[in-house]
Amino acid sequence: MDSSLPSSDVLARFTALVGSANAITDEEELAPRLKENRGLYHGRAAMLLKPGSTLEVSQILSLASETGTPVVPQTGNTGLVGGQTPGEDGHSIILSLERMNRIRDVDPVANVLVADAGCILADIQRAAEEVGRLFPLSLGSEGSCRIGGNLSTNAGGTAVLAYGNTRQLCLGLEVVLPTGEIWDGLRRLKKDNTGYDLRDLFIGAEGTLGVITGAVLKLFPRPVGHQVAFAGLASPQAALQLFEKASNLCGTALTGFELMPRIGIDFTTRHIQGVRDPLPTPHDWYVLIDISTSDAAETAETMVHALLEQGMESGLIEDAVIASSVAQQKALWHMRESMSDAQKPEGGSIKHDVSVPISTIPDFMAEAEKAVLAAMPGARICAFGHLGDGNIHYNISQPIGADKGEFLGRWRDINAIVHAIVLEKGGSISAEHGIGQLKRDELAAIRPAIEIDLMRRIKRAFDPAGIMNPGKVISV
Amino acid sequence: MDSSLPSSDVLARFTALVGSANAITDEEELAPRLKENRGLYHGRAAMLLKPGSTLEVSQILSLASETGTPVVPQTGNTGLVGGQTPGEDGHSIILSLERMNRIRDVDPVANVLVADAGCILADIQRAAEEVGRLFPLSLGSEGSCRIGGNLSTNAGGTAVLAYGNTRQLCLGLEVVLPTGEIWDGLRRLKKDNTGYDLRDLFIGAEGTLGVITGAVLKLFPRPVGHQVAFAGLASPQAALQLFEKASNLCGTALTGFELMPRIGIDFTTRHIQGVRDPLPTPHDWYVLIDISTSDAAETAETMVHALLEQGMESGLIEDAVIASSVAQQKALWHMRESMSDAQKPEGGSIKHDVSVPISTIPDFMAEAEKAVLAAMPGARICAFGHLGDGNIHYNISQPIGADKGEFLGRWRDINAIVHAIVLEKGGSISAEHGIGQLKRDELAAIRPAIEIDLMRRIKRAFDPAGIMNPGKVISV
Repeated sequence: MDSSLPSSDVLARFTALVGSANAITDEEELAPRLKENRGLYHGRAAMLLKPGSTLEVSQILSLASETGTPVVPQTGNTGLVGGQTPGEDGHSIILSLERMNRIRDVDPVANVLVADAGCILADIQRAAEEVGRLFPLSLGSEGSCRIGGNLSTNAGGTAVLAYGNTRQLCLGLEVVLPTGEIWDGLRRLKKDNTGYDLRDLFIGAEGTLGVITGAVLKLFPRPVGHQVAFAGLASPQAALQLFEKASNLCGTALTGFELMPRIGIDFTTRHIQGVRDPLPTPHDWYVLIDISTSDAAETAETMVHALLEQGMESGLIEDAVIASSVAQQKALWHMRESMSDAQKPEGGSIKHDVSVPISTIPDFMAEAEKAVLAAMPGARICAFGHLGDGNIHYNISQPIGADKGEFLGRWRDINAIVHAIVLEKGGSISAEHGIGQLKRDELAAIRPAIEIDLMRRIKRAFDPAGIMNPGKVISV
Repeated sequence: MDSSLPSSDVLARFTALVGSANAITDEEELAPRLKENRGLYHGRAAMLLKPGSTLEVSQILSLASETGTPVVPQTGNTGLVGGQTPGEDGHSIILSLERMNRIRDVDPVANVLVADAGCILADIQRAAEEVGRLFPLSLGSEGSCRIGGNLSTNAGGTAVLAYGNTRQLCLGLEVVLPTGEIWDGLRRLKKDNTGYDLRDLFIGAEGTLGVITGAVLKLFPRPVGHQVAFAGLASPQAALQLFEKASNLCGTALTGFELMPRIGIDFTTRHIQGVRDPLPTPHDWYVLIDISTSDAAETAETMVHALLEQGMESGLIEDAVIASSVAQQKALWHMRESMSDAQKPEGGSIKHDVSVPISTIPDFMAEAEKAVLAAMPGARICAFGHLGDGNIHYNISQPIGADKGEFLGRWRDINAIVHAIVLEKGGSISAEHGIGQLKRDELAAIRPAIEIDLMRRIKRAFDPAGIMNPGKVISV
């Protein structure tokens, strides 16, 4: 959209809505909100507003509509595609939901929890735990990301295999539309076939259609049995075959199946404090297997032993260990979750967040490796991720001794090579992180024109003035 | 929309697209397509077209757009809200997908099945079974309903508790838009965060935004353990408490939890051949409990015994029986599934397909009974359904000796009484059947104006000419 810098008069009107303590223009205070974690984007903003209620969000958007002021919603600012970062023109206001962090209700009988969009994910997990329930969404940034952002990006994480993405964990939403109108869709129903699915349209829209201010989330019984195993294997093919066995044996009790390469174990043992190689000799590939059962602790135990036995007998598993304490279970997960951080001391890393149909994972891994090494000899591929979901974080550390800046300069280049193979397999260039600014133009380039056109029609129908998080997901 | 009877010239052009064998105007052949099962709606149509491919569907919609001809998509014609029935003006053509009944692909490793929209649900279940997998969608009409209709209405059924509605069972769609453009969204990915969720917008849209022609469906491991139990209890409150215990104990292994009233057992034992009361003495309420386990048959056995023991010890269960053979399991489910049919010989039945937050079920049942009996003394309430989903088929058989026509004349009347209580509980007036013609105006009346307005904007953005299934779900 075309917009100009909001006048001081307009900014004063915004300030009046939330009080001057919650309307920030101080540069130092603004600074952390203007960039995202990886340092890929750095924007500017006219003001940061921190409303304290849905009504205040409504008043802000109503005024933004009237004055044509672009609004960038932000919660935990942990997104990885620049969706929460304002543009560089400085015309936008950032609307932070951090003060709206109240758990509105917890109902362990109906298995629902109602939360403000600004609640930190870990606080929601804790509130569920306090009533003996599980809110299964779990990801590295859970201590700082907020549920509004999780919903707006349809966050994935480590529990998707059994419980689904954030979309599957949400029953209802409260959304403030660009006009300021409030849609109360806070339903608590498992079945409700009453017209078009507005809820799922706002989920994953990355704040471009409205601002999510509250949500009804699904809770689950807490598992009573939990087992974590770690196995060394020869190849992604072996891992895939083992996944099939695990899936047949455990059904929905299979709560994690993560693939890791040897180089990832090297990086984590080298750079992450306290991480040790769980197996005595090295293997080319590894899987972390997580099993949770609701009936009895013994069921998980029986399952994990049966699975490892099947894996050994069929020659798929070379060696394996079962965590014998909660501390050991946590250590195995910690190794997996710190794999991205462990790449940092190794220099630059070019990232991909892709998914492919899981039966194509072995071919994808082989073809991508060949193509990447041909384009960049010496590149160190550290591809790991949620094998059971087909979601691979195809990360590439720079060749030893390479210049970091020069290496990172080939980001788009290497992306194009990997994404071409992903697309050829019928895969996705953004499995769980979303589109934001990072992949907006790439999305438009790879998808059929009719699909982009339909998205554009939805955007125009919901946000005709184009004030909602402009420049993200889709260009209008 | 305003439309007039298609001219014979236009009809000839439609005929040319599919061949005269697949363009039906013969009244006798048309007749069964013009009415729905319950006899609530009886429409007229200018022609019935049976395209054989997505391309033909595209050509038909393209011509319909050009000529302003309304199109009513139809698959198995088993819908219960008139969504598949043309209007009375006779201006529409019916587009039947019945010839598009090919299973395009089955991949047991990736756990996906790709089907034409015209595939009969039971054929899809069978194709999954043939490769050792489960497609869990299951409902009374599975022998004749077709997957395109299941998707378009987001069908529920008996397996929702563990596997979700049809929405949760679909990974990707192929849709022909009103203009004839084809959207190929046949993705096979569990994680794909790339823009607005078009898939879930078409699911449940009841053919008003486009015609679903193909779908990627999720398959699951086949359970190896299966137990069905039947318990007599004193009240819906006891059933709810038992459900909580079952849910905690079994987690996702709890694959069914159905509530039934004594009168439903009376009706089925009286009218359905082969149905016998499974328990020696009568109880006021009953639940059917279905447990499926993936690891071992013994797990299901242990669970069902533990649950009944807990239920007995806590005084929730008065008496119970566990099916000791597959035949007995089927007999218990047959009783539950024939409960609606068993009402027919008892005279007229006024139906409701409602859901409420499950913790409110006991209150809802008590308040609705009181209100209905006050309005219609002698009414025989046969309320049964998927307690675990909060979905009650609140059916009311006519008082003994009442006039059927007069009784059915009070349909809207009684609906209003029951729905008011449903809404007061935060419930839904259509849990699984959809809106169609039956509940369109009621939906517009009970929902906030902004919600109806957003739906209308979507309808206009996708179908500006208003040719897709006009008059259903929402008036434009």
